[in-house]
Amino acid sequence: MHTGKARAYTNIALIKYWGKKDEELILPMNNSLSLTLDAFYTETTVSFDPALQADTFLLDGQLQNTAATAKISRFLDLLRELAGTKLRAAVTSENFVPTAAGLASSASGLAALAAAGNAALQLGLDDSQLSRLARRGSGSACRSIFGGFVEWEQGTDDITSLAHPLAANGFENDLAMLFVLINDKQKDVSSRDGMRRTVATSAFYPGWLASLPEDLAAIKQAIATQDFTALGRITEANGLKMHATTLAAVPPFTYWSPQSLLAMDLVRQLRATGTECYFTMDAGPNVKVLCRRQDEAAVQQAFSNSFSSDRLILAHAGPGISYL
Amino acid sequence: MHTGKARAYTNIALIKYWGKKDEELILPMNNSLSLTLDAFYTETTVSFDPALQADTFLLDGQLQNTAATAKISRFLDLLRELAGTKLRAAVTSENFVPTAAGLASSASGLAALAAAGNAALQLGLDDSQLSRLARRGSGSACRSIFGGFVEWEQGTDDITSLAHPLAANGFENDLAMLFVLINDKQKDVSSRDGMRRTVATSAFYPGWLASLPEDLAAIKQAIATQDFTALGRITEANGLKMHATTLAAVPPFTYWSPQSLLAMDLVRQLRATGTECYFTMDAGPNVKVLCRRQDEAAVQQAFSNSFSSDRLILAHAGPGISYL
Repeated sequence: MHTGKARAYTNIALIKYWGKKDEELILPMNNSLSLTLDAFYTETTVSFDPALQADTFLLDGQLQNTAATAKISRFLDLLRELAGTKLRAAVTSENFVPTAAGLASSASGLAALAAAGNAALQLGLDDSQLSRLARRGSGSACRSIFGGFVEWEQGTDDITSLAHPLAANGFENDLAMLFVLINDKQKDVSSRDGMRRTVATSAFYPGWLASLPEDLAAIKQAIATQDFTALGRITEANGLKMHATTLAAVPPFTYWSPQSLLAMDLVRQLRATGTECYFTMDAGPNVKVLCRRQDEAAVQQAFSNSFSSDRLILAHAGPGISYL
Repeated sequence: MHTGKARAYTNIALIKYWGKKDEELILPMNNSLSLTLDAFYTETTVSFDPALQADTFLLDGQLQNTAATAKISRFLDLLRELAGTKLRAAVTSENFVPTAAGLASSASGLAALAAAGNAALQLGLDDSQLSRLARRGSGSACRSIFGGFVEWEQGTDDITSLAHPLAANGFENDLAMLFVLINDKQKDVSSRDGMRRTVATSAFYPGWLASLPEDLAAIKQAIATQDFTALGRITEANGLKMHATTLAAVPPFTYWSPQSLLAMDLVRQLRATGTECYFTMDAGPNVKVLCRRQDEAAVQQAFSNSFSSDRLILAHAGPGISYL
């Protein structure tokens, strides 16, 4: 029996990944840039075992259904191919989230599984190789291999599409991100389907792609010079732009709810009254508020007037994967 | 003394006017298409009087300030130029709106003023010439000269940029529009400034323009064939697209408030439960809901559960200008 265990943290993109140029290999249409965060992580154990007839997947103590297990099996196939084995595996994952918020992330989940499999099968993959592998499970998982600020180079094939951490300068330790959990009901449009529809039909998708090189260059400059104002402005503008692409899809759709707008308005009000913060959103109604660590208490206090405290989760920069 | 009086109704664009190619002549970047509505109108009297030293502007019984009067004076200059007179004028306008909702429209206001001036100075302008003239006061005013469905041909100069009514087939009489008044607080970004910023900076503006010929052809087909579903879908999609352009402006901005999203969600819920309706929005948080006349009571009832009844105004297709 070959067993490995690893932990990976979630990440939030400041420059968004939105659209694939290869659905099978999960090659994205654009580079993205994220911050790995300490508030949500997944610990996964994988055991390749001659006694098993089939793969099994236990998540937070619950044996998962056929569809969820099949997705894991397809990823385990990649590991088996690398190791030259046909052994079936038992996968046991735990998502560590501060509340039952439905924030379990495929990014942390697939990154942890990739690392656990690397350990179990003694593949000896380094972090770059692991990033490529995790990408195959869930695109954004390739960024969760690393801590702090991370860029995912879109690349042109399976070899060249992978993430790398930005040169660390400590800036990430001055930052905080408040997760504002709007609701945890099932999404109308999954991120996978949303991307696909946007790429295929949105009149704004070409404009989105064309605008990204400038956003990426500017945010890297902001990180290098530790310019929080520029970091925040670019993050907020890029997130809005990504969400705007969905409004021009055919048919149009949105991940925003009235409460999302309320949270955005609150961020604008805080800025107008001297507490500098910026928001970003992903393929769902939750709002993530980026601020300086010195302002996190003020931001959290302001949000607690409009949102119940168990819907507010404060996060800081997190590390990359660890083997347990 | 030369006096004229006229009435003009407001209009709501189903294919939006968003951006000018000539700020002085008010030539738009694209054709737009609207429905003139009966719920809001302006009545204006203009008297060119040798006894006056300066233009005066009385709106709803209030003498207006220098800035508002200067805007009217610039428009009166166009009339004076056409008539070859230097007489100053007294302008008296009344906005007829069901509530004090701040919905006074520059479209009905400038259309009424153009028509009143035409009468006062006996210029003998026909409706097409009047449409061109009204356009100089406020772009969308050129559409309020006509009733029912109206298209504003962008044109290439002062002569060719004007509105005309679509061939009437009675379809407009089957329609209703529920105005959902979200608030009447001052806008952060005027429509004029919003257009300007979007044209100059939005990564999505070229995509918006490129998508319009298809929207216009499709909505004209829907009107010709009295296809309400197509009319509604195109209207809603076009409005969302227009608003999405502002999210990619630099800096980004939005006219949406949390209550706007609530109204949009309500429209989607109504559709999902069999009451067909669609929304559109302009440069402000109010939501306008398009439905068939047979469904107007159901739509109004559904909205009255979430919005107070004095914030809901039902409108039907309205006529063009009339001389009083």
